[in-house]
Amino acid sequence: MALLDENRLFSVEPALRDRARGLYDTVRDLPIISPHGHTDPRWFAENAAFADPAALFVTPDHYVFRMLHSQGIPLADLGVPRADGGPVEGDARKIWGLFAANFHLFRGTPSWLWVNHALQEVFGVTQRLNATSANAVYDQIAECLTRPDYRPRALFERFNIEVISTTESALDDLRWHQMIKDSGWGGKVITAYRPDAVVDPEFDGFADNVVQLGALTGQDTTTWAGYLAAHRTRRAFFKTYGATSSDHGHPTARTEDLPQDVAARLFERALQGKCTGDEADMFRGQMLTEMARMSIDDGLVLQIHPGSWRNHSRDVFARFGRDKGFDIPTRTDYVRALHPLLNAVGGRSDVTIIVFTLDETSIARELAPLAGVYPALKLGPPWWFHDSAEGMRRFRETATETAGFYNTVGFNDDTRAFCSIPARHDVARRVDCAFLATLVATGRLDADEANEVAHDLAYGLAKQAYRL
Amino acid sequence: MALLDENRLFSVEPALRDRARGLYDTVRDLPIISPHGHTDPRWFAENAAFADPAALFVTPDHYVFRMLHSQGIPLADLGVPRADGGPVEGDARKIWGLFAANFHLFRGTPSWLWVNHALQEVFGVTQRLNATSANAVYDQIAECLTRPDYRPRALFERFNIEVISTTESALDDLRWHQMIKDSGWGGKVITAYRPDAVVDPEFDGFADNVVQLGALTGQDTTTWAGYLAAHRTRRAFFKTYGATSSDHGHPTARTEDLPQDVAARLFERALQGKCTGDEADMFRGQMLTEMARMSIDDGLVLQIHPGSWRNHSRDVFARFGRDKGFDIPTRTDYVRALHPLLNAVGGRSDVTIIVFTLDETSIARELAPLAGVYPALKLGPPWWFHDSAEGMRRFRETATETAGFYNTVGFNDDTRAFCSIPARHDVARRVDCAFLATLVATGRLDADEANEVAHDLAYGLAKQAYRL
Amino acid sequence: MALLDENRLFSVEPALRDRARGLYDTVRDLPIISPHGHTDPRWFAENAAFADPAALFVTPDHYVFRMLHSQGIPLADLGVPRADGGPVEGDARKIWGLFAANFHLFRGTPSWLWVNHALQEVFGVTQRLNATSANAVYDQIAECLTRPDYRPRALFERFNIEVISTTESALDDLRWHQMIKDSGWGGKVITAYRPDAVVDPEFDGFADNVVQLGALTGQDTTTWAGYLAAHRTRRAFFKTYGATSSDHGHPTARTEDLPQDVAARLFERALQGKCTGDEADMFRGQMLTEMARMSIDDGLVLQIHPGSWRNHSRDVFARFGRDKGFDIPTRTDYVRALHPLLNAVGGRSDVTIIVFTLDETSIARELAPLAGVYPALKLGPPWWFHDSAEGMRRFRETATETAGFYNTVGFNDDTRAFCSIPARHDVARRVDCAFLATLVATGRLDADEANEVAHDLAYGLAKQAYRL
Repeated sequence: MALLDENRLFSVEPALRDRARGLYDTVRDLPIISPHGHTDPRWFAENAAFADPAALFVTPDHYVFRMLHSQGIPLADLGVPRADGGPVEGDARKIWGLFAANFHLFRGTPSWLWVNHALQEVFGVTQRLNATSANAVYDQIAECLTRPDYRPRALFERFNIEVISTTESALDDLRWHQMIKDSGWGGKVITAYRPDAVVDPEFDGFADNVVQLGALTGQDTTTWAGYLAAHRTRRAFFKTYGATSSDHGHPTARTEDLPQDVAARLFERALQGKCTGDEADMFRGQMLTEMARMSIDDGLVLQIHPGSWRNHSRDVFARFGRDKGFDIPTRTDYVRALHPLLNAVGGRSDVTIIVFTLDETSIARELAPLAGVYPALKLGPPWWFHDSAEGMRRFRETATETAGFYNTVGFNDDTRAFCSIPARHDVARRVDCAFLATLVATGRLDADEANEVAHDLAYGLAKQAYRL
Repeated sequence: MALLDENRLFSVEPALRDRARGLYDTVRDLPIISPHGHTDPRWFAENAAFADPAALFVTPDHYVFRMLHSQGIPLADLGVPRADGGPVEGDARKIWGLFAANFHLFRGTPSWLWVNHALQEVFGVTQRLNATSANAVYDQIAECLTRPDYRPRALFERFNIEVISTTESALDDLRWHQMIKDSGWGGKVITAYRPDAVVDPEFDGFADNVVQLGALTGQDTTTWAGYLAAHRTRRAFFKTYGATSSDHGHPTARTEDLPQDVAARLFERALQGKCTGDEADMFRGQMLTEMARMSIDDGLVLQIHPGSWRNHSRDVFARFGRDKGFDIPTRTDYVRALHPLLNAVGGRSDVTIIVFTLDETSIARELAPLAGVYPALKLGPPWWFHDSAEGMRRFRETATETAGFYNTVGFNDDTRAFCSIPARHDVARRVDCAFLATLVATGRLDADEANEVAHDLAYGLAKQAYRL
Repeated sequence: MALLDENRLFSVEPALRDRARGLYDTVRDLPIISPHGHTDPRWFAENAAFADPAALFVTPDHYVFRMLHSQGIPLADLGVPRADGGPVEGDARKIWGLFAANFHLFRGTPSWLWVNHALQEVFGVTQRLNATSANAVYDQIAECLTRPDYRPRALFERFNIEVISTTESALDDLRWHQMIKDSGWGGKVITAYRPDAVVDPEFDGFADNVVQLGALTGQDTTTWAGYLAAHRTRRAFFKTYGATSSDHGHPTARTEDLPQDVAARLFERALQGKCTGDEADMFRGQMLTEMARMSIDDGLVLQIHPGSWRNHSRDVFARFGRDKGFDIPTRTDYVRALHPLLNAVGGRSDVTIIVFTLDETSIARELAPLAGVYPALKLGPPWWFHDSAEGMRRFRETATETAGFYNTVGFNDDTRAFCSIPARHDVARRVDCAFLATLVATGRLDADEANEVAHDLAYGLAKQAYRL
């Protein structure tokens, strides 16, 4: 039995399905460009075997464990590590069994597709995951993981990844990237500059982090000028490990373009831990504009991932820490929020700002009109809860008529679930081809144009936008 | 002539239509679970004949008379009772004639389907409703209403209703429910606890209502502790009439979890009529959390129906009172609003909170992510203006990928239009089957899974979520 | 080669496509009612030849030049005039060449359809626009423009325009309309009353404009009573040039219904330039209600076009002025904003208020419920960024179930791109017919009803709502 339908995500109408399929056949085997994500560079550095099926599919995947949690399964029973290091379930087979027995919860969700894709295409599983098949599937995956062709580098090559970007803190020493470099392996694994720890006054240990940034860069980060110089130095360091972008995950999309003396005083308050909530937001906003100005000089693409209320459950945050499924999107106003940034640099063609959204209502109303006129601004692909067939369809339907295709930047998988990467890119390619086929079949695009656009969406735009 | 298309609401593509139809055939005859609505228990208690076609189809149905009003037909001409008891049109045939002559206004609206369904399936009407057919259709319905098999209990049985919940004020004596009990009739008609009159400081006569609550329960409702005890007592009373849920219709989704002494002082101000608008909202919000805590003990399911600006027209409110079509949805922020409630009880599996929304933008952005991680939270079905084919489709398309199916609770008809109940459940079953068929046909669900889910959506989930 | 697909914008499923096509065939040749737009009355007054292809397709069309700008092409290179009158590209063929070489940017946008429609249907072009064909297409259009049958009046007649409304400032002398009148030509070109310059305290030269309004009307516009009388006088003047509507483009949808003495004092502050931003918004809001009261007497239909943040780029505004693609929609709250206006006049059947939105989220949530109950309120068609196939589909899907068809007002092209008018009405007719065909095929409307509604949407509703 096949877990996957060969024509999945195409239209059901036969002629339209064939058209989508035909487009898809021209892009399905293109290399994967993965310009934004959260895989662990250590995998590729050490190239050690993955531990077990649960460690690969359950424990690190917040899509998976949050859904199980929503139906009353405690996180500890799924092996999710506790913040205090206390005991959690350690029996991988038991965790896998819980997952398998509850796999019906994922019906209609992207995880259903991603997991089935990985099971079938990566591990050759042909039986559906459930309580009955749990052990057999576990064994099959576990056996694979012992083999050299299931080591991270082998999978990287098998997945046909042309380039993948990880994301590291500005304070990271990039040792794993150095180790990859030193290894002589040809896989292109690059980093991205993620300075939350040193640009967010509300980040744990902000002031100490800024001191550490100074130490790492030899700059005097007690002054605004030195602090900015330290960022420039550190960005240059990241560039030596292939970085072509920075990334910023702020609670709001707020930007600022304050006079430098005002910004300097705000920085001082931030260092002293005196910022109000609003001032902290203002400082983060100022730093987006500063980063954009640095981008003009060093060419790093600026990515903004705003609008998530992090750690909504105080209890789960206290017990399990960050990234446990309790990050909930909120309404985000881009028109006012991006005004300072866009007035500072939005008219330039020598800087690229990629904005992502968790608030789909903003696409047709705000983001497509903004990206459809400011040269610097591009729309990031459907993100997180919208990295799904319906989310991608809605993105194209609401973005394209105003922003076109060429103010978008292809697909990001944005994942830490390595085996889901081919599945995610495959979903994006299928949905985009289905969309293009519909445009052609309804007289809104010519067939040869659709071929070009399909290639651009699957490959070309990501390479170009991220300067890869 | 048939008023209804046998394949209505399925896809037009033949193979997909057949698949949807096949799924639907497995659920079309399942009993109706109606866990939330506003039918009048007196109907089932007295089992008297319904008065006339206008009293059944026009006067009590705000979907119907608001649309006629929007095109300039005065409410009084439709027999809608005046607040001051002054004269309104009393000739049922004349009211029916106005409705019939303007039935084209309902083209493309759910009322078109509901009315046609009731005309054909309940009353055997085969001619389209319009000015020409008005009298003949009136006569046909009127004749039916004289017959015993059109009495409320007979229709209840014919509609295959397994259980229906009405909604009563916390101050209601539940006499009609007692009369149903005493009658020995086997129809399962239960109540639900609706305490707006005694939890909303802005409700007409709030302080007096609280006094009355005290009298009914033997508790000292002048104190916060006594007031909470009175609710517990009253909820227990409602449970003896089958209640499995409470229901709360607040202007916002705000919840609070104040320290008990602060809540007690707020209650005091509420009793004294001293609450500001914001304090009244805060008190309502606090009571949601208090009700949730009571639910942990007594098992009532907590329903929240927020976000409607009631009585938008001051003039119509003054002349005709509440529920006259002038309740207009507003934007609702659930992430911040539900934070106190979810932090208090959201992590528990022994309490169920069902949230409805009139703001569809919140589904993909806020409610699905919240329901997709908090065990206590479930998503109510498309409500009110969204109880429609397009509303249901959008609900599934925006909720499912993040919340799945098992964090939703099946369908509610939420109606006071008795004859529309089979029509409404039929629409929901059709739209859900069409959605599932699409998932199967596009490789996002296996066929046998779709069968299971179809049954769950039509029957199982409502029973389970409402503990019926 | 045909640039256009005969079955464009219909469903792909063959039976449904045929049904849509059948409906469309009954409305495709209906005359165009264009009750709201921005064509230049001078064209019809002087009936001079259009200058060149660039002046027809590029320079005046903000949809076109904003997209080119978003990909880094300077506005000056497209011949967009500078605010200071400084030099910009003047070579029409060069501008056209830039447009042609970048026409791929419009893939998937409505401009792709509009431009191809105009090229094929108006100018007989059969080759696709790109760098290779640029010169040949330019020559073909330029040759046409020399011929008498391409003069504005000839095109007006060929486009089968029954009536078109332009939009003029309240201070306009309507000389071109007078010239049309005097010419004896039979084309019906009417004006609309657009008083932004004299109702918006933040408009450039507001106080002077009000003085000028006084001079034009012989009223003492230094007093509130005289100011209102001046509007009444001026509206009467516009009516002599066929006006049946006024139009109001405010940043928000705010309305007010202040006591007259409060309004008078606010007017005084506005004249003195003392209004805060909030007071200016309040005054504009008050004027909407005043205009609605005037409408009761003189019958002009009140149009509200709210919710655009004008001139988002300060730099482009400074260099190129208004309407350069930097007007970005914002969230708009209609429930609260329209409350004063609707409470003042919303219950009346003798006044018509047409509201447009750039915030699609408000349609299902706010506008359809409001229009579905207030007799005075109607929903304007999809506007600006939503004047597109997907925008129109979403409008029908979100508006119809609550507001029906008869609380909508047909289509507006709202354009200054003359040759796009037939294309735009054609898109609307096709999308509406596709929507109606879907309703019929899914059992939500009878076939003969769909025929009636198709005619109403294409022709009848616009005539009726705008009293044409």
